[in-house]
Amino acid sequence: MLIIAVIGGGQCSKEEAQLAEEVGREIARQGAILVCGGLGGIMEAACRGASSEGGVTIGILPGDSYQAANPHIQIPIVTGMGYARNVIVVKSARAVIAVGGNYGTLSEISHALQSGIPVIGLTTWSLSRNGQQDNSIIPAQNPVEAVNKALDLTTK
Amino acid sequence: MLIIAVIGGGQCSKEEAQLAEEVGREIARQGAILVCGGLGGIMEAACRGASSEGGVTIGILPGDSYQAANPHIQIPIVTGMGYARNVIVVKSARAVIAVGGNYGTLSEISHALQSGIPVIGLTTWSLSRNGQQDNSIIPAQNPVEAVNKALDLTTK
Amino acid sequence: MLIIAVIGGGQCSKEEAQLAEEVGREIARQGAILVCGGLGGIMEAACRGASSEGGVTIGILPGDSYQAANPHIQIPIVTGMGYARNVIVVKSARAVIAVGGNYGTLSEISHALQSGIPVIGLTTWSLSRNGQQDNSIIPAQNPVEAVNKALDLTTK
Amino acid sequence: MLIIAVIGGGQCSKEEAQLAEEVGREIARQGAILVCGGLGGIMEAACRGASSEGGVTIGILPGDSYQAANPHIQIPIVTGMGYARNVIVVKSARAVIAVGGNYGTLSEISHALQSGIPVIGLTTWSLSRNGQQDNSIIPAQNPVEAVNKALDLTTK
Repeated sequence: MLIIAVIGGGQCSKEEAQLAEEVGREIARQGAILVCGGLGGIMEAACRGASSEGGVTIGILPGDSYQAANPHIQIPIVTGMGYARNVIVVKSARAVIAVGGNYGTLSEISHALQSGIPVIGLTTWSLSRNGQQDNSIIPAQNPVEAVNKALDLTTK
Repeated sequence: MLIIAVIGGGQCSKEEAQLAEEVGREIARQGAILVCGGLGGIMEAACRGASSEGGVTIGILPGDSYQAANPHIQIPIVTGMGYARNVIVVKSARAVIAVGGNYGTLSEISHALQSGIPVIGLTTWSLSRNGQQDNSIIPAQNPVEAVNKALDLTTK
Repeated sequence: MLIIAVIGGGQCSKEEAQLAEEVGREIARQGAILVCGGLGGIMEAACRGASSEGGVTIGILPGDSYQAANPHIQIPIVTGMGYARNVIVVKSARAVIAVGGNYGTLSEISHALQSGIPVIGLTTWSLSRNGQQDNSIIPAQNPVEAVNKALDLTTK
Repeated sequence: MLIIAVIGGGQCSKEEAQLAEEVGREIARQGAILVCGGLGGIMEAACRGASSEGGVTIGILPGDSYQAANPHIQIPIVTGMGYARNVIVVKSARAVIAVGGNYGTLSEISHALQSGIPVIGLTTWSLSRNGQQDNSIIPAQNPVEAVNKALDLTTK
């Protein structure tokens, strides 16, 4: 089964949470597994969505206890490695969907692009290097399109 | 659901593989999830056992690709962190069962004991410190006893 | 003694290498220690500069052997953790100077900003989030200004 | 320059601290660099010894701030990775000297042996596997002998 990462901030707006929840629902409907950083905000909203459709959710936790996982995480992976766990979140996925996000999310986007893992963005960062726009983050207009693009890119 | 780790060498004897496979079967029969390092030898044998009983298997991989997972891993977690992933294998478990094993296994036993996670041993290392026997590794006579002890210790 | 990170690609243009070498020289002249990812390109150029002024250089290596360090690394730290070592490069520094760079460099910039470590940029990434420019990367016009800004920001 | 690791507990007896301090002194006298986990107990005692002889000391810290380093650490490396940093302590060394120690130390011994890095023991763990003594930890009678054995083994 394909694993898709949903990344985004531990705190987020209500609108971003709705986007993330719908992304999670669609991942589950399509039969994929959701991996995330296991905590609140975007991560929790996406897991809530996936769980509501009977999907499987994995949380790669930064701390030392499985008890920090949000209530919709079925498989908590306890790293004790702090933000270095961001690398594992993206490397474990065949594609990454970013919803909003802060610098932690940007580090995950960077690690994914560095590893050649496709990144689909819903209202997230945009990048330019030495004045040239970098278009590596693939935009999506809505959650269903984001998940479809993620699945398309992984199966190529 | 409880997660139980099975640790042991990437290469092992036929007898050790049989023990590990039976440990995996019993973990699945008891309704627990199996986590391991995701590769061959003891890890593969344990996953084969768990899979044959319809259980869930997680592999915490040292390398950069999910494709290195043994064929019985359902959920490959890709760390790219080499042996530092040993820490994650044990921290993600509520109890650890060691079958045989080399120095990598000993590092996992050590990390588990350091984190207060119970370790049950089937034909594995024994330790002494400054001439005094250390009895922290709990012996089990057979795979079923090992899994029962693991589950007993986690639920306390 | 203060530790300053220099980050940038393992491959770089001649112009970027000259900037990095001058950054390294200035770090050493100011009596600071240089930390980097230990490999070639920008990392090697910065270390060459620091060494030529008698400075101390630390390389946080991704692989399993100290022998992968560039020839100007005096203190090789061997992580065996691949790109997760990027986190260590920036967390070990009191300020970070980015010269050019690819996605690995962007991950280091992100981890630094996430940890509240100041980032000074010479010809590097620029960021915007949801259409709003993010000005967290502090621009510098030349290597000496970059090092002065780095030292000013750490001592506050 | 050669880097030698000194490993041991964050808490230790007065006798162990004296051994570790003398190990640190001898490492510095022989012109080697000392690496350790950067905290108290054996680590601090060894660094105190090395510093008193003008040696260089590196601390690979588990937490998020250089300020947790013991006062004799000259080069703090901040990992934020908890006990996963144990891997880095030993991989960065050409030989490891263990003084006393708890399970964290045992994990470092294991990681070193797994990576083929020689381990010299002063009053530390002893190992047996399936009833057979494992003699991989090389005993030393005193600090000077420990350092000499470490340097002999690295230069082969």
